[in-house]
Amino acid sequence: MKVVQLTSPEQLKIEVCLTPALLPLYDIENSIVVVIDIFRATSSICYGIENGAAAIIPVSKVEECAAYHGTECLLAAERDGEVVEGFDFGNSPFAYTAEKVAGKTVVLTTTNGTHAIHLSRQAKKIAIGSFFNLTSLSEWLISQQENVLLVCAGWKNKFNLEDTIFAGAVVSQLQSSGYKPDDSSIAALDLYDLAKDDLRAYLKKTSHSERLKKLGIEADIAFCLNVDITRAIPVLEGDKLVKL
Amino acid sequence: MKVVQLTSPEQLKIEVCLTPALLPLYDIENSIVVVIDIFRATSSICYGIENGAAAIIPVSKVEECAAYHGTECLLAAERDGEVVEGFDFGNSPFAYTAEKVAGKTVVLTTTNGTHAIHLSRQAKKIAIGSFFNLTSLSEWLISQQENVLLVCAGWKNKFNLEDTIFAGAVVSQLQSSGYKPDDSSIAALDLYDLAKDDLRAYLKKTSHSERLKKLGIEADIAFCLNVDITRAIPVLEGDKLVKL
Repeated sequence: MKVVQLTSPEQLKIEVCLTPALLPLYDIENSIVVVIDIFRATSSICYGIENGAAAIIPVSKVEECAAYHGTECLLAAERDGEVVEGFDFGNSPFAYTAEKVAGKTVVLTTTNGTHAIHLSRQAKKIAIGSFFNLTSLSEWLISQQENVLLVCAGWKNKFNLEDTIFAGAVVSQLQSSGYKPDDSSIAALDLYDLAKDDLRAYLKKTSHSERLKKLGIEADIAFCLNVDITRAIPVLEGDKLVKL
Repeated sequence: MKVVQLTSPEQLKIEVCLTPALLPLYDIENSIVVVIDIFRATSSICYGIENGAAAIIPVSKVEECAAYHGTECLLAAERDGEVVEGFDFGNSPFAYTAEKVAGKTVVLTTTNGTHAIHLSRQAKKIAIGSFFNLTSLSEWLISQQENVLLVCAGWKNKFNLEDTIFAGAVVSQLQSSGYKPDDSSIAALDLYDLAKDDLRAYLKKTSHSERLKKLGIEADIAFCLNVDITRAIPVLEGDKLVKL
């Protein structure tokens, strides 16, 4: 006889919200949300927290970020892929080295990533994902035994491939633990399987890659596709992202 | 010297709107919109128009459909995959045979498909796509030399695989004609390439397939995956879908 276990992993869901515009359709309150903005906000956040940043405060607007001028915080503001004038830095991961951020609090606003974090505030927990912390994040998710909602920050509310491919990478790590995938998880997984052997080559065909190339940040892009170079899992505590 | 041709196909866009919830992000006015609801509204519409229906009138609400009671129209109403009580039929393609619809006008409301048609009304032209008319539709799109926006009806504003796979099939037919794909077109094409050799097997793993199976409409599903069994292209003229 098969015993029904109400808390068994078979009943947990894994879903991929392909853009923040679709977030109202999901049961955010009953899920752990992983926010994904591979190029480059969540990669930089993972790197900064790994490198000892005390906290990273995500804010939606450039003005909110500017309000921290005169404090000890480092101020990071990016819009349309570029550092906003008058700010310390944007969201290049190379700005989040230990030399620059260890022990510091960074206030960060980006085009897509911080927007997605704010829309997910009702979640049981918000964690930050990138290729940098893929395995560490996935192991932690499995240990939590909660529904998982992977939120792709996209580009101005549109679908993008890099965030979806990473969502597929997480689905890949979680799939043997019995989560029930939705259609977008299945799609993300299949796309990840196509891309995984050479992420950079696969993503070269995307529109976003072309745009970032124009911005001269190809080195950032290449760096953001490194897998498992960090272990820290940034999570939101109050209004701050801190190390779990 | 390369001559820039303002009307050259290189500059036309092909985009996939993965769910109707994302439609506000697209330049509908400057595109031909193809509405896609494979299981089963747009398959049935293609089949009905091919089989000689004079017109199919898509309406958003069951009450609007009911308002046609007492006219000569056939009334078709589906909600959550089932025929609404008191109506002639729903959106099973088997209800759209020549015997039933030739020369008739059908008033149709469905969960997702008619919703997507109504949200796309500002388009240059709205056409209806399904695997039934894939090649005919694609040839016509190429002949039009306009931006193409493939709108997946999805399931209650969420992404679904079957509509996306079909969008990928259209991208596949149009790709050698120089359209510029967005990220969702690239994803749809890659998923179609994975699925095309056995659409039915691929789609068996989806959540939607499971739901439709529960509704006992597996024969409909199998039928809707037939490729190129019709040539008619239903287009919206005023408030009616008619043969182009």
